[in-house]
Amino acid sequence: MTAEIWDVIIVGAGLSGLSAAHFLRKREAKLKILILEGKDRVGGRTVSSDIPAANGGVDVWDFGGQWVASTQTHIMELIKELGLEVYPQFNIGKKVLHVGGPPSKVRVYRTSIPALSLLVLLDLTQFLWKIDRLSGTVCVHDPLKTPNAVELDSMTLQSYIQQHAWTAELKEQLGVCSRSVFGMEPSQMSFLFFLMYAAAAGGVLALLESTPGCAQEFKIKGGTQQLSECLVERVGWKNVRLGSAVTAIWQDAEWARVKTNSDTFLCRAVIVTCPPHLAAKIHYEPPLPAMREFLTQNMPVGHMIKFIITYQTAFWKEKGFSGEIVTGSSSNSPFCVTFDATSPYGNPALVGFIAGQQASHWSPKEAGERREAVVSSLVKYLGPEAASFIHYEEKDWAKEDYSGGCPVNVMAPGLLTYYHPSLRKPCGRIHWSGTETATQWCGYMSGAVQAGQRAALEVLAEVCHVVLTAEEQEVLQQNQITRRQSSSKLMCLFIRKSVVMTTLTISAVLLLSRRHDVLMKIKTYLTNTIL
Amino acid sequence: MTAEIWDVIIVGAGLSGLSAAHFLRKREAKLKILILEGKDRVGGRTVSSDIPAANGGVDVWDFGGQWVASTQTHIMELIKELGLEVYPQFNIGKKVLHVGGPPSKVRVYRTSIPALSLLVLLDLTQFLWKIDRLSGTVCVHDPLKTPNAVELDSMTLQSYIQQHAWTAELKEQLGVCSRSVFGMEPSQMSFLFFLMYAAAAGGVLALLESTPGCAQEFKIKGGTQQLSECLVERVGWKNVRLGSAVTAIWQDAEWARVKTNSDTFLCRAVIVTCPPHLAAKIHYEPPLPAMREFLTQNMPVGHMIKFIITYQTAFWKEKGFSGEIVTGSSSNSPFCVTFDATSPYGNPALVGFIAGQQASHWSPKEAGERREAVVSSLVKYLGPEAASFIHYEEKDWAKEDYSGGCPVNVMAPGLLTYYHPSLRKPCGRIHWSGTETATQWCGYMSGAVQAGQRAALEVLAEVCHVVLTAEEQEVLQQNQITRRQSSSKLMCLFIRKSVVMTTLTISAVLLLSRRHDVLMKIKTYLTNTIL
Repeated sequence: MTAEIWDVIIVGAGLSGLSAAHFLRKREAKLKILILEGKDRVGGRTVSSDIPAANGGVDVWDFGGQWVASTQTHIMELIKELGLEVYPQFNIGKKVLHVGGPPSKVRVYRTSIPALSLLVLLDLTQFLWKIDRLSGTVCVHDPLKTPNAVELDSMTLQSYIQQHAWTAELKEQLGVCSRSVFGMEPSQMSFLFFLMYAAAAGGVLALLESTPGCAQEFKIKGGTQQLSECLVERVGWKNVRLGSAVTAIWQDAEWARVKTNSDTFLCRAVIVTCPPHLAAKIHYEPPLPAMREFLTQNMPVGHMIKFIITYQTAFWKEKGFSGEIVTGSSSNSPFCVTFDATSPYGNPALVGFIAGQQASHWSPKEAGERREAVVSSLVKYLGPEAASFIHYEEKDWAKEDYSGGCPVNVMAPGLLTYYHPSLRKPCGRIHWSGTETATQWCGYMSGAVQAGQRAALEVLAEVCHVVLTAEEQEVLQQNQITRRQSSSKLMCLFIRKSVVMTTLTISAVLLLSRRHDVLMKIKTYLTNTIL
Repeated sequence: MTAEIWDVIIVGAGLSGLSAAHFLRKREAKLKILILEGKDRVGGRTVSSDIPAANGGVDVWDFGGQWVASTQTHIMELIKELGLEVYPQFNIGKKVLHVGGPPSKVRVYRTSIPALSLLVLLDLTQFLWKIDRLSGTVCVHDPLKTPNAVELDSMTLQSYIQQHAWTAELKEQLGVCSRSVFGMEPSQMSFLFFLMYAAAAGGVLALLESTPGCAQEFKIKGGTQQLSECLVERVGWKNVRLGSAVTAIWQDAEWARVKTNSDTFLCRAVIVTCPPHLAAKIHYEPPLPAMREFLTQNMPVGHMIKFIITYQTAFWKEKGFSGEIVTGSSSNSPFCVTFDATSPYGNPALVGFIAGQQASHWSPKEAGERREAVVSSLVKYLGPEAASFIHYEEKDWAKEDYSGGCPVNVMAPGLLTYYHPSLRKPCGRIHWSGTETATQWCGYMSGAVQAGQRAALEVLAEVCHVVLTAEEQEVLQQNQITRRQSSSKLMCLFIRKSVVMTTLTISAVLLLSRRHDVLMKIKTYLTNTIL
């Protein structure tokens, strides 16, 4: 049997792989590019599905990555190029917060400052200030250059929280943040990794908020899987093989041989885009350097179950709620966070996430039991109308073949400082992509696009011997630029936080002196102006 | 092509797999057992090789696991059954200790107490006391039952060291301990995992020492690979296929189908014995439970380069040295520890380990450069005679196919408390073995034997429907017993340590009062009597 010959083979038809293919195709139209995908669909960690909606209709919702932000330049440019549209995440109205154990009061608030006691607010502010300052010192491109890198990498995010958050309530809330962002407990990741991740997004708050520039700012009309589908249209369906999981990559002086269970393909360069824990399952000949093997052995992926629940009316909006509910691990709620998910066509829905230890608890249970627990929590927080839903649909990413988890692989402690360069460093004819290898919005769809384009440039320069333009060379070097960008961005945050710190320090003094009337005024002031 | 049919297939011809096969064969002689091994040899993480020795001869040395202890009942019984002999690790004479940076004094001492200042000794004692007390609270069989399990599992061993060791010198020395025992930095592992590992060995000191009952007590005449070779003789070479790496295991209602690159075998039960990071590379249909996938994604294996250097004479003994050298990361030495390795036939040699971050630094370099650095350090610590060696031979376990690291897989933080039961829990027809699944001397050759025998019992009871004897049932339940054993053992340690604590507290008071003469007396007393 003669093996098919291609110029470039891309492993994975997610956003990163398809962005790489699209970029290569635009730059060198004659390149023969083949994309091999294990799943029976394109899109990787994005998938958009039709489910029953209001008035007997159906509508489309995202069951994987869904949000984009104006600061995510790579994905925003792609959206524009592909002629897609974004719309803002709805976040107007009362938000619900439940931390501090089942017997504690469920708090409701309207601003971007959580309805916490002044003491916890003060704690939150000092904690964010510290962590944002540290995040500003991180060199995303080469974390070993970060001051105290070894020390920061030798502790878990949870250890830092234990040492630097003062109140149990804040500690619980930070657990919710970790679960929402990474699908993982703060005990599972390196603190330096967390700082690097935040730095790649421009700061910690950017990861958490739905305000302009932050991670939850916009959604894409018609769903995010369209991005991959539009890219395939441009790259050509004939160049994509679904249900073709790559099992081995052999390299010799002349070729890379990419094997699936049924075929072998020859090519000059391979771009592997799948998440690190899946890339680690491929058999490589000659073996990859030990440093890379050690690295990918230590990059656990998160565990997230995402659900969409559709309704006849957006009863929560009618009652003044935004749809945002944040619940801590002590609340007995199966989910950690929900948001309004009403479609751009007006079909009411909520979206929520069961993540981290909650996912490990709820994932093995019966679907009906899980749905009942979700609905009963929604009833508790938003009212009895939540029980009258049209349809409940969920996706457990741990059970998705050729994903095994979502949204992103993190790094366990002790890796960034020893093994990190192995993540992006090409191994012979193999180049590495996927959002985990990004230096801007690493872990997000935008990072997937950035990484795909960077890998494509590597292939063009090193394998196809194409002379890169000055601009393209700059893109290859932009890792260094990231550091300055995030530093300057951080300066603004630093100044903003300093003001808050001063104000809250005064509050603390007053708190200790029990001047309740003055305290209330300060809280109102804080609520309305600063943050 | 018709697939061969077997009763039990064992993946991996290391000590665990061969022990399982031997146990099954003894219990049910008619069972058709096939052992599939990726390597071209048996023995897994044990390998014994002939190298040039004194007087133009050759002799055999161990390049993998080498030590056993009288407390390691499973391996000691096997050694006896196979008719092999042990001999004690030579440890008489001066020991060398170099921590505290290149400019610091190289210290020499003769006892089991390191030549540290009284302050550092006091620090060491209080630290060991704390850690041993904690280790005694660990439930090896179910770590979640340990008091404060979640907290202990949310921090790295390094975080605990940072918080509870007072002196920089002790912190450096604990790094050496972590590298020597795990081939890994203390920043890479869960503190709860470390405690569990120590508890499974009967205490922290048992991991570190070469005194009776401790991990480095005996070696096996002729090398440890003989264990596997003798076991194969009993199991039958016709039942072992070398060069047969398992790539997939499919299960249906009737069969397990075990696939290699060239063959498919059918069987009723499979015992997978390879280390967790390699078991994770096998493709399973239906997929394994998500909990197990998350667990094996987070069990990094250590990185060790082991070297043997042979000499015409044991010049170190002639000069009064034992051959034991302990060097911290600040010492510029490539290795962390060496021992005398003179063979039972009197051929002089030293054995040493380049491990953890030192291995990640030295592994990519040229072999000659590494050898030169090792020899130059030996010259520094033992004298110029060290330069006149006969032969230097090393094994980098990270580069060994179907190992990828040594000596053991640890657990990253945040896993024991969520995912641990998945490590031993059978998945349909698949049973799990390998030293990482042991509850007594987990990580050691003895643990490999224990785990193999336990998996064999599971297969006998659940698949072959053999009625187990009371004794065998007890073996299956012995995980619970371990807890009591290690607790009682710990009581002795606790008492011993309490005495030392009291004495050293008095010393500290004197230290602060600068009564140098009294101090010297106490140090002599401590050196000669207590520890």
